[in-house]
Amino acid sequence: MSVIFDASFSRFGKRVEGIIDLSAESALPLVRKYGKDIDFIIVSNSYSGEYNGISGINNLVSTRLSLDSIPSVRVDNTSGSGGSAILMAHSMIEAGVAQNILVIGAEKMTSYPTRKSTSIIASLLHPEERAAGLSLPSLAAFMTKAYLQEFGAPRESVARIAVKNHHNGSLNPYAHFQSEVSLDEVMNSRIIADPLRIYEFCPVSDGSVSIMMTSEENASSMSGNYVEILGTGAASGTSSISARQSLTSIESVKRASELAFRRSGVKPSYVDVAELHDMAAILEIVESEDAGFFRKGHGWEAVMNGETEITGSLPINASGGLNSKGHPIGASGVAQAAEIFLQITGGAGRRQVKDARIGFSLSMAGFGNNATAVVYGGAS
Amino acid sequence: MSVIFDASFSRFGKRVEGIIDLSAESALPLVRKYGKDIDFIIVSNSYSGEYNGISGINNLVSTRLSLDSIPSVRVDNTSGSGGSAILMAHSMIEAGVAQNILVIGAEKMTSYPTRKSTSIIASLLHPEERAAGLSLPSLAAFMTKAYLQEFGAPRESVARIAVKNHHNGSLNPYAHFQSEVSLDEVMNSRIIADPLRIYEFCPVSDGSVSIMMTSEENASSMSGNYVEILGTGAASGTSSISARQSLTSIESVKRASELAFRRSGVKPSYVDVAELHDMAAILEIVESEDAGFFRKGHGWEAVMNGETEITGSLPINASGGLNSKGHPIGASGVAQAAEIFLQITGGAGRRQVKDARIGFSLSMAGFGNNATAVVYGGAS
Repeated sequence: MSVIFDASFSRFGKRVEGIIDLSAESALPLVRKYGKDIDFIIVSNSYSGEYNGISGINNLVSTRLSLDSIPSVRVDNTSGSGGSAILMAHSMIEAGVAQNILVIGAEKMTSYPTRKSTSIIASLLHPEERAAGLSLPSLAAFMTKAYLQEFGAPRESVARIAVKNHHNGSLNPYAHFQSEVSLDEVMNSRIIADPLRIYEFCPVSDGSVSIMMTSEENASSMSGNYVEILGTGAASGTSSISARQSLTSIESVKRASELAFRRSGVKPSYVDVAELHDMAAILEIVESEDAGFFRKGHGWEAVMNGETEITGSLPINASGGLNSKGHPIGASGVAQAAEIFLQITGGAGRRQVKDARIGFSLSMAGFGNNATAVVYGGAS
Repeated sequence: MSVIFDASFSRFGKRVEGIIDLSAESALPLVRKYGKDIDFIIVSNSYSGEYNGISGINNLVSTRLSLDSIPSVRVDNTSGSGGSAILMAHSMIEAGVAQNILVIGAEKMTSYPTRKSTSIIASLLHPEERAAGLSLPSLAAFMTKAYLQEFGAPRESVARIAVKNHHNGSLNPYAHFQSEVSLDEVMNSRIIADPLRIYEFCPVSDGSVSIMMTSEENASSMSGNYVEILGTGAASGTSSISARQSLTSIESVKRASELAFRRSGVKPSYVDVAELHDMAAILEIVESEDAGFFRKGHGWEAVMNGETEITGSLPINASGGLNSKGHPIGASGVAQAAEIFLQITGGAGRRQVKDARIGFSLSMAGFGNNATAVVYGGAS
């Protein structure tokens, strides 16, 4: 069994620092505490070549951390990189290949204008669909229209995700956005991909998050709290959106979640706190159904009823989610795990979910091309 | 214990195909044989963003292979990506996170002129050294001068690596270069970074190689031959070349090799066939010493004596090495493992090393920023 025993954050947002300094910002506090014990570094990062003009980021970061002698690797799975990095760290620990792994998720994206950014990220789409002009925002718009029509959900249910997550972000000192928005503000904001408006998309952000992982055996001999990885699940769906059976369900999310729940012996109803991949607001609703928390077509009701608020029965994206916290691509999946660590160990401050014991995170690549689900529990 | 139970190659060279089709070329024969059993795909690739303008290569490749539903990830460690990918696959299998992993190493590099290519790859250097105009070829030139001076080695000993490896490549139907070169031709070829000449560097190549890995338990129930991963070692040195103690030894190679030998219980003297990272000819000599095959400063003698030829006591780079086979960055480390698989299972054709039972590979990132060593053995 692998565990997470510490986490460290940089502020997400438009940052002046470069990718290496940003990576170091969240990693250094952990290096100061555990430096001599760290025996492997995994850097979760997707676009350091395209955005920052560097390669071998893992080696440059370890040099920056004065951990030159520690082996490292970069793990990339676009927006789902963080989940994949945790899966790899978990595997290395379970296999005994490494004992104490520093996982750093980092991305520096604001150096380019949003239009260029969207184009770079669209390079993960199926070539034919990319050539047809599709982008991730336009896919989210299709999904929204299909969902509202198929399940008779009110338009506001999607906007309420943005309201909830901006509220949560206002309680998170590391979030990109630190202020609330009203339903009116969301509904009257600029249209990005009809019907979705700007507040319903995550911003383009810079930032990094780092966590420490080890075996439960090691962790139990330490003094601090830790959170166990009870189960993981990775699954993929087709990169071709037009080849999918449904526009209102994501196959990779369903299968990754089922696998993680089966392996952990935990049922979705046991989960106290979840972090989902809300790159666009509609995704939080669809994923909350595909992960098994609500019946298909009923996730929107949970939003309207306040069930997914911090004070609700299943708080989703208490961190603010990608929507408000920001989405530095390689950092997001690691940030989810870091948030669950804080929630289960009682360190989430003003956004603390009461009695959080079982956590769940869903890190997703592209528009559901690939997903990694993790079930967490058992803080000691 | 994890094992390699099959391997498949594309021809390396200047290829017209794009990165996705190139990846599929080596992977499809394995997908046809094992498709239904594959439960994870690792793509070893460094520069698909920079060279090919795509991201999420792992998802695009799995869609191309009609393995959409199989989870995947990209592993990057620049030139050492292949070694890292094998380390990750090994960990996932040992941890029971995956059972049958398809590891695809691929890179498409010839779309840009060599000068631009060298500049992209120099983006892995320490920023200050990169700013000072250093590149991988110039570092290899420094190392060559230092080695020749420190150990009184003749200039020809370095050139002989190119002669040997081009001979070996002429026996490898998948090698970029398929013809021999004479010592005179090497010594009179164009200077790239004084004193090193063009034949002493690997070419810029496109290509892919795929291998299948599983647990020994699974493999023993199959009909075919397989090769065990007896031990792995990963280690790093500083990215800053000027901060290194020696220019004629690579710390990461020493420590990675020691670790792999210790974990496997194998001594360097037991090794029958080795694949080293000869991006520049001098590196083969330096690594052959750092890996423990020859005493420091004596590797050049082994070359002069023919000990590292296919018919010698320790054949090195029977495949032709990066020098002649080519160096599609993400593919090279996987190609090393594939070569060792062929050698130990007796499938290496005209370049077959007699009675090869124990193998060794050394996959290196940058100019020794990071290295992964693997010890192989026990074909059944």
